[in-house]
Amino acid sequence: MQLHSFFNSSTSQRVRIALGLKGLAYDTLPVNIRVGEHRAADYVANVNPSATVPALVDGDFKLGQSLAILDYLDQRYPEPRLIPLEPHLRARVLELALLVSCDIHPVNNLRMLRYLETELKATPQQKAAWYRHWVGEGMAGVERMLARSATGPWCFGAQPTLADVCLVPQIGNALRMDCDLSAYARSLAVYEHASQHPAFVAAQPQRQPDYIA
Amino acid sequence: MQLHSFFNSSTSQRVRIALGLKGLAYDTLPVNIRVGEHRAADYVANVNPSATVPALVDGDFKLGQSLAILDYLDQRYPEPRLIPLEPHLRARVLELALLVSCDIHPVNNLRMLRYLETELKATPQQKAAWYRHWVGEGMAGVERMLARSATGPWCFGAQPTLADVCLVPQIGNALRMDCDLSAYARSLAVYEHASQHPAFVAAQPQRQPDYIA
Repeated sequence: MQLHSFFNSSTSQRVRIALGLKGLAYDTLPVNIRVGEHRAADYVANVNPSATVPALVDGDFKLGQSLAILDYLDQRYPEPRLIPLEPHLRARVLELALLVSCDIHPVNNLRMLRYLETELKATPQQKAAWYRHWVGEGMAGVERMLARSATGPWCFGAQPTLADVCLVPQIGNALRMDCDLSAYARSLAVYEHASQHPAFVAAQPQRQPDYIA
Repeated sequence: MQLHSFFNSSTSQRVRIALGLKGLAYDTLPVNIRVGEHRAADYVANVNPSATVPALVDGDFKLGQSLAILDYLDQRYPEPRLIPLEPHLRARVLELALLVSCDIHPVNNLRMLRYLETELKATPQQKAAWYRHWVGEGMAGVERMLARSATGPWCFGAQPTLADVCLVPQIGNALRMDCDLSAYARSLAVYEHASQHPAFVAAQPQRQPDYIA
């Protein structure tokens, strides 16, 4: 398999974690979103109509949207399963993963911050406040979900799931942006636990072939 | 079942459509997000830690995040199935649904527009430009996906799927916001087709008990 990926894209990182957890070998095809390579005509026409990273290539099949890729991998390579089959646990895992994926990440990614700067003339302080605001809103929800289920060391028990796959890169992102996460102790405990796991470590931005210091 | 819902929340509308397609009766519990009812302490603590709409109540089980709810309903009440089981079709359906749900909706919802106005002092023109920009970016991707699969009358063939459940409310939303969608003919054709289907019609904002003219 091949993965079109950018080193500090947290959606790319989700897929890298899942590939690692499942022990699936892949080649990284770097797409530098800072210079707009995800918008190149050939990439959009032939790889990923979303014009985003990541995109998975599995034989003849090319797929964008990280959560669709994660579901596809879980269907096709189910060991270890990241989206549980038991309906209530499955729902809780998806609920947390989607809170991260719909309510936190999309409003804080590169294209948002660029639009704020170029079109709305937001100052660096306003951009930082924007980022922190939505991280705070979302992480408060994550923390409430973890308090309700009250397990550990992972979000939902003894094994990592899609919830961890989505949460851990988001926390890493927030820490890089100097967000104060001290109010989210359960989330940080999951993050610290994941930071010892080989698949999570190998997926970190600074370990990618396209890393830019 | 009961659905905590707001009449013109497109995430609530997704769930209303799915309940209708599956022929499941439910009571609407209105949550007026314009006046912050989704942030009420009791709702957040006891119903939906995401502090959003919708939230489904199925017996003792309460669940937030519309896509988690839609997956749950599809698992528990699989007829008619909205998320196909065949891996490649399933992946395409999820890819389109997630493009709408992650790349279009979250950046254009009420809380975004309010933040732009109150914190960044965006003018009505700037808010409208923001909305149209992200709709345009996302709808171009949707249209490319539909061109690639080239089916109809629904996004992926003869039956509605999760892709339609997500796309149709988003298009309705964009039309209410006076976006020019004429470049997205395939998407509009799906929307027009859906507008004749009883489950899609019944889920429309103006038909909800909490509708505000």
